[in-house]
Amino acid sequence: MSAQSGTDSTLAPERVDAVSCLRSRHLLSIEDLTPEEILLILDTSVAMKEIGTRPIKKVPTLRGKTVVNLFLEPSTRTRISFEIAEKRLSADTLNVAGGTSSLLKGETLSDTVRNIEAMVPDMIVVRHASSGACHLLLDICNARVINAGDGMHEHPTQALLDAFTIREYKPSIDGLKVVIVGDLLHSRVLRSNILLLRALGADVWVCGPPTLMVPGIDRFGVHATTSLDRAVTDADVVMLLRVQLERMHGHFLPSLREYFRLFGMTTERLRRAKPDVIIMHPGPMNRGVEISSEVADGPYSVILDQVSNGVAIRMAVLYLLAGVGVGEDQVHQ
Amino acid sequence: MSAQSGTDSTLAPERVDAVSCLRSRHLLSIEDLTPEEILLILDTSVAMKEIGTRPIKKVPTLRGKTVVNLFLEPSTRTRISFEIAEKRLSADTLNVAGGTSSLLKGETLSDTVRNIEAMVPDMIVVRHASSGACHLLLDICNARVINAGDGMHEHPTQALLDAFTIREYKPSIDGLKVVIVGDLLHSRVLRSNILLLRALGADVWVCGPPTLMVPGIDRFGVHATTSLDRAVTDADVVMLLRVQLERMHGHFLPSLREYFRLFGMTTERLRRAKPDVIIMHPGPMNRGVEISSEVADGPYSVILDQVSNGVAIRMAVLYLLAGVGVGEDQVHQ
Amino acid sequence: MSAQSGTDSTLAPERVDAVSCLRSRHLLSIEDLTPEEILLILDTSVAMKEIGTRPIKKVPTLRGKTVVNLFLEPSTRTRISFEIAEKRLSADTLNVAGGTSSLLKGETLSDTVRNIEAMVPDMIVVRHASSGACHLLLDICNARVINAGDGMHEHPTQALLDAFTIREYKPSIDGLKVVIVGDLLHSRVLRSNILLLRALGADVWVCGPPTLMVPGIDRFGVHATTSLDRAVTDADVVMLLRVQLERMHGHFLPSLREYFRLFGMTTERLRRAKPDVIIMHPGPMNRGVEISSEVADGPYSVILDQVSNGVAIRMAVLYLLAGVGVGEDQVHQ
Repeated sequence: MSAQSGTDSTLAPERVDAVSCLRSRHLLSIEDLTPEEILLILDTSVAMKEIGTRPIKKVPTLRGKTVVNLFLEPSTRTRISFEIAEKRLSADTLNVAGGTSSLLKGETLSDTVRNIEAMVPDMIVVRHASSGACHLLLDICNARVINAGDGMHEHPTQALLDAFTIREYKPSIDGLKVVIVGDLLHSRVLRSNILLLRALGADVWVCGPPTLMVPGIDRFGVHATTSLDRAVTDADVVMLLRVQLERMHGHFLPSLREYFRLFGMTTERLRRAKPDVIIMHPGPMNRGVEISSEVADGPYSVILDQVSNGVAIRMAVLYLLAGVGVGEDQVHQ
Repeated sequence: MSAQSGTDSTLAPERVDAVSCLRSRHLLSIEDLTPEEILLILDTSVAMKEIGTRPIKKVPTLRGKTVVNLFLEPSTRTRISFEIAEKRLSADTLNVAGGTSSLLKGETLSDTVRNIEAMVPDMIVVRHASSGACHLLLDICNARVINAGDGMHEHPTQALLDAFTIREYKPSIDGLKVVIVGDLLHSRVLRSNILLLRALGADVWVCGPPTLMVPGIDRFGVHATTSLDRAVTDADVVMLLRVQLERMHGHFLPSLREYFRLFGMTTERLRRAKPDVIIMHPGPMNRGVEISSEVADGPYSVILDQVSNGVAIRMAVLYLLAGVGVGEDQVHQ
Repeated sequence: MSAQSGTDSTLAPERVDAVSCLRSRHLLSIEDLTPEEILLILDTSVAMKEIGTRPIKKVPTLRGKTVVNLFLEPSTRTRISFEIAEKRLSADTLNVAGGTSSLLKGETLSDTVRNIEAMVPDMIVVRHASSGACHLLLDICNARVINAGDGMHEHPTQALLDAFTIREYKPSIDGLKVVIVGDLLHSRVLRSNILLLRALGADVWVCGPPTLMVPGIDRFGVHATTSLDRAVTDADVVMLLRVQLERMHGHFLPSLREYFRLFGMTTERLRRAKPDVIIMHPGPMNRGVEISSEVADGPYSVILDQVSNGVAIRMAVLYLLAGVGVGEDQVHQ
């Protein structure tokens, strides 16, 4: 599927006023962002994406700034995306991985971060297995903190890159039927996406097996169903969530084959959706579980666009939080 | 506790003559340094610390120089500190970790380092689990070697950052009562600190359980005692050493609770020290073992200053060893 | 052994015409290179080696280019060599290691690489345990791919650095007797070296235990023998292959002592070779298995030259594939 021109998407008539900076010094959750701020990030990402098309994909924006990628839960994909974004902006990057970190020997997360903070990095990108880990760090850090996924809580840059990708293919998010399918219970991507898509006016449906349904999810203003056929009908966007086998502990799903039969996305199922439906997946994909290879590699798939756009989104977030060229007095926490 | 102004500390009337470069091409131990050289590093670090306060914390001093961080024993904290220091000086950095290093498959340490040396890095920062490992490398290396901790032998940049931190709070190290408490037997930090503090004229006391006392330690010109109360009385500086549980093998200490009762630093115990005592710890802290949280986070603690100053010290050492702007003929091993 | 001057080796009268660029956008195997292209890489490496002798060992050639070092099989030595080469050319480098990569959780190699490719790196250096893994990536990648060793297939930059090293000591590769000794069966280095050395006219002998001999190897135009004495007689170059204990599974060799007795290179054995023989080893060496320490550290050994030259060869390959300053229309796959 070929994207609409960048011009169209940046001129999308979202019904919000423009802002020029973020209120917070950190990006911890979509919940903290106003619709205006979400659009600021999305619009800034358009310019950042253009940088990635140049022969020299590098600008001096963050020269002399130090960014620590503190990945206390492994995630190569997200780490690479942030690291490429940081390097395109000329930041100095340091990687700290949890598995190899002696910081954690008998030390609390707070002490670990206090120590990193004492070396005065400008920004810390944090991935952590525990929900809310990032919020614990706010009182400690002068460095700006970016949440790169905390437990089952939020993964804000994923939701932002998803929205950016949708806007490349649709004139506006407002009024779209967006269906999110899969392991609703364990997904931080779900939560961030619901908040963002609702903020921009989408009609959000969620669908998954009863054992993986989130109790009381309708209070987020979404439609919940266990019928994939019903969910997909007339959908503009279908987002598949990864079956996180490592969190399943064997008792949520009878079998992967059964999962695919009931919730796997196939070409046949997609016939119920709108003719210009797009298919999204945050990766890594389990082919033959959440999605058939025919769909993953087919004309509706924008899965690799999501990956590409992730770099642009992270550049925009780094740029906006760094406050470069923005008066410090305009930036408050 | 707020530090004295940088001006005061750089003008501290230490009773030694100024020198402008280091005699050795390497930094392997405090033992190799003259008092003049120690003060040169400390004074240079003042300028380096200032760089860390700028909006762009980066100078081109080591541009085009390659530094290999060869950490054959894991130490994320020290590695990050060196890596940030290297990047602030614009060096190119490479990280080689022991756990993931195939260099070691059936290969001697000498061969590993000969291979790295053959790629002509400018400097190698070495962390190794064996005492004296760095000295083995001297005959092999044209690159300048910095000891980032070798077994139970030395950890010179730790002692230097400790001295730097003391000088920020005290007019002079000469004549201070400095007490070092804890696992004396396994500590490279102890050895480096005794040598440095004695060279600058401090009155050094060491204190720990009998099973962790170093036989014959009084020949280093220090007072040894197993009574913490006696050691702390009238102390200007109390340095706590980490209980390295991974080296205890279970038979040096009856229990951690017992350790804390006898040697843990508490607010009550600190009452015996001077009113302006400062508390230091090389990290990572075991709260409730070496130190109570009340002391660790209290007004006498300069523990996070130590971490901050570590970057400045390492910048100074990298700068002085690189010999940038210093005639090569003045530099000998 | 001291090398001939660089001037001599660059003027070596190889009987091929000069070319100014590579036909392929990738470097996957020596098999894909013409003799002219091999010589182009070797000649370019002479200039690159000179850069490594400057006080500032860095040129801006690949500034703004991103290189991903995707090492799905660990190899610290090769990774460091590539990373130093990349940094000397001012590229931005990212390291992705297989052991720590969550990309691989339920994901195919193709999907992993498609994802990295979607972030638009300029070059991907791939090390993989499976033979032919790199070729799978060609249809996926717009980035230029460099094979840093794939299973038992090829390791082209190793063969190139070996040839570069030979040319520093011999007026021409044409007509030299080159003997390759050791674990022929599991060696990617063997295959790449045979192809390269034969292309440049060397008389290649291979020698190893019968259990590690490659069936039908004579079709590559080499002489095969199990007699080391016969192989070494009048040799100009002796290349030892690493006994890859990790691939032996215990049943190829009776014992390492037996191996050394029959195939280990000793000073005594070397007496049969030409007086100016050179000894090579791709590393890491098993001293006392493939080679005695006396030979490894002796006057005929050029083993550390190989390591040094590896950086220059990798710089040349990165430079030539990047197509910097070369019209894109002249470059085809």
